[in-house]
Amino acid sequence: MATIVFCSVNKMAGTSARQCLASHLKGLVSAGESRLQLPSANSPSLTLLRGTRSFSRGFSVRFMSHGAAGRSSAGRTRTRALALGGATAVAATTVISGFLVNANHFQRAEMAAKVSQATQEKEPDGDIMERCRGFMSPPVTDIRVMQETKGAMRTKMELLIMETQAKFCKALEEVDGGTFKVDQWQKPDGGGGVSCVLQDGKVFERAGVNVSVVSGYLTEEAARQMRSRGKVLKGKNGKLPFCAMGVSSVIHPKNPHVPTLHFNYRYFEIEQEDGSHQWWFGGGTDLTPVYINEEDAFHFHNSLKEACDKHNSQYYSKFKKWCDQYFYIKHRGETRGIGGIFFDDLDTPSQEEAFSFVKSCAGTVVPCYLPIVYKHLNDSFTAEEKGWQQLRRGRYVEFNLVYDRGVKFGLATPGSRIESILMSLPLTARWEYMNEPPEGTREAEMLKVLRNPKEWV
Amino acid sequence: MATIVFCSVNKMAGTSARQCLASHLKGLVSAGESRLQLPSANSPSLTLLRGTRSFSRGFSVRFMSHGAAGRSSAGRTRTRALALGGATAVAATTVISGFLVNANHFQRAEMAAKVSQATQEKEPDGDIMERCRGFMSPPVTDIRVMQETKGAMRTKMELLIMETQAKFCKALEEVDGGTFKVDQWQKPDGGGGVSCVLQDGKVFERAGVNVSVVSGYLTEEAARQMRSRGKVLKGKNGKLPFCAMGVSSVIHPKNPHVPTLHFNYRYFEIEQEDGSHQWWFGGGTDLTPVYINEEDAFHFHNSLKEACDKHNSQYYSKFKKWCDQYFYIKHRGETRGIGGIFFDDLDTPSQEEAFSFVKSCAGTVVPCYLPIVYKHLNDSFTAEEKGWQQLRRGRYVEFNLVYDRGVKFGLATPGSRIESILMSLPLTARWEYMNEPPEGTREAEMLKVLRNPKEWV
Repeated sequence: MATIVFCSVNKMAGTSARQCLASHLKGLVSAGESRLQLPSANSPSLTLLRGTRSFSRGFSVRFMSHGAAGRSSAGRTRTRALALGGATAVAATTVISGFLVNANHFQRAEMAAKVSQATQEKEPDGDIMERCRGFMSPPVTDIRVMQETKGAMRTKMELLIMETQAKFCKALEEVDGGTFKVDQWQKPDGGGGVSCVLQDGKVFERAGVNVSVVSGYLTEEAARQMRSRGKVLKGKNGKLPFCAMGVSSVIHPKNPHVPTLHFNYRYFEIEQEDGSHQWWFGGGTDLTPVYINEEDAFHFHNSLKEACDKHNSQYYSKFKKWCDQYFYIKHRGETRGIGGIFFDDLDTPSQEEAFSFVKSCAGTVVPCYLPIVYKHLNDSFTAEEKGWQQLRRGRYVEFNLVYDRGVKFGLATPGSRIESILMSLPLTARWEYMNEPPEGTREAEMLKVLRNPKEWV
Repeated sequence: MATIVFCSVNKMAGTSARQCLASHLKGLVSAGESRLQLPSANSPSLTLLRGTRSFSRGFSVRFMSHGAAGRSSAGRTRTRALALGGATAVAATTVISGFLVNANHFQRAEMAAKVSQATQEKEPDGDIMERCRGFMSPPVTDIRVMQETKGAMRTKMELLIMETQAKFCKALEEVDGGTFKVDQWQKPDGGGGVSCVLQDGKVFERAGVNVSVVSGYLTEEAARQMRSRGKVLKGKNGKLPFCAMGVSSVIHPKNPHVPTLHFNYRYFEIEQEDGSHQWWFGGGTDLTPVYINEEDAFHFHNSLKEACDKHNSQYYSKFKKWCDQYFYIKHRGETRGIGGIFFDDLDTPSQEEAFSFVKSCAGTVVPCYLPIVYKHLNDSFTAEEKGWQQLRRGRYVEFNLVYDRGVKFGLATPGSRIESILMSLPLTARWEYMNEPPEGTREAEMLKVLRNPKEWV
């Protein structure tokens, strides 16, 4: 089946083992996409909220990797899966996953390099219906509408965020052995979304990957607030038709040596009184480890830097700084994590080129993170390390509820889907009075970095 | 030694068992106050931050109940205590506490009725130094300054909040067996506070009782925001000298059948350009159970209603409604708990009468809550009930970080003591995606009340 191929795949030959593993993991994801799963009555993997739409064969379907994951799904309810095709691809996935579990980090990286070359695919330009088959649910916009507006940025972006969601969810299911619960929801006043949540899995305490596509009318003041540069926008009778869409995700693993990941890529369009359109992109990917691991930090930041460098040599340093500034818990004097990239209001050099940059960023999500997960998922840890993780989770909650613009905007917007907005919170968190780790400990080392963000690449 | 006696004690004869137990518990607290404790080097019960002041015999001392609590302090580090006096009172405490542990709720209430009559005391008008001996730490304002301004409302209120803190902390230590960690802290720009925290105790997951007394200058805008009625205040060159003080507390018990308590009583004074003073009181006490218990809810609300009714027959219904409105988690469509009373901007009918009302409210803190703690502390509970408690704790975090005016003001104020502000957060909390208890369960019953606040008295 057709899938979007991450831009960095073309650069595979001669890259480091790290990059190879990253690309391989993308390969894994592509390989496992060709099976049709019917949700069972008790544990629907696709829930349609506030109205359903037919999607292929008159049934709401979901194409995903079968229970072929290398890690067992013990303790998890898996949905009933029917193999309808793509048997070879799935078999390959099984084999590779098995290897991955038994091999160490660097062995896995080497194997990955070999396998990945076989799974390279080209940017699809085929039928939209065909592309949608790989998604976690039907897209929010009616497929016929998307087919009619194939060249519009709205359509291209919606396909990208749905694809990003699917690839990332499948990569996570692969490593966890669990299954995402998929809820498709609709806003009464237009638009909707697809929320995918894997909770209390084997590897992940909570993993949420959310797509939303909403449209409606904004007041001039609200429109102004949405743009960090505060441009003046003129609406018809003070109101501006808008369309906003994005994919966002927060992954909280169980093992304190596997860091938390957050990413978000979004697109806005506003129509002014004179009929002209303003549009811009925003987004970013950032990492929140519980303990510092220099190698992981380098891999993560370097993946992002490579994606940025393909488009503009200034982007990485500019967006890295922006990230450190944005994810700052002011009342603690700490950043939330070790950063990554963050940008907003991006409307240069052209719509196509900005989109291409966002596509590159979205394409790094799996390769910048999954190798770190595989590397540490079996690391042993102490109760003290788990406790420190829980305290850091508390800080995560503080940032998200007190400062995060998206959360604040969502909570203040009537009709928002609260469960999707607060998906970013961890399953569990802890607060201790006056906890200050002693000098010389790994906990103190972590705090030092959070208080003085450093350069990793 | 002299202590403030709660106003309702005079009404003891002929009251119900509930009220008797409540009053008794106050008696217990009074009885255990006459011992001098020197903090040990490793586990200081009094920590002086940013400068210390001498307090009695040239040493920072703390008067509190000895290890005579009926419940053992196993697993907790207790500070080294020296009995310097009041042996009879302490012995009485020991005996009574022993009874309380072995007796059931109603037996305890009956015994309490008998004991309480022996421990009734009068409102003290003695030496301020003498009154301060019962506190958890020296007051924030220098004792000599307080002695010189004995009749000023600032002084009377500071003594009340320090006394309220001490009585409540001692009642909690009595039931828990643990010891509060006491931090006295000073703000670089004036004022300070006393934070008492008991963490991971036998009965309480986290109990925080905080006093703060701060002064400085407010902008006219900030002063306006502090008054919910938004009165216009005129300052010298736009700045207004102010003084704010209060006692606030949040108690998160371990057992899901023991509810969370919050209370806060505060006083503000602002000096205008013409030298005139504006002053007002605010405060409230509210309960957040994990499960509905009608008897507890009645006892709690009725205690507050009795305190209100002594001052104004409209207060309870007005402030009960205000409480339901204030502690509302808008994005969830739920109140935080089953309410209580909440008021702000109280500057009628006179300063003395408003203070007297606040004193009555502060006086109900122990009797409205401790009987409920004693009643349920040994209740058995399931893992599911503990899980539901953790989810409700998550909602508590949501309210406190997203809506609570005090927390928002504190986090946004440079130089605030963050650890004291965030003391209100639970030790542990949990978020689950799309958790909706099935109809007919006790969890659903709780939610129903939170979605439709009811009358309990």
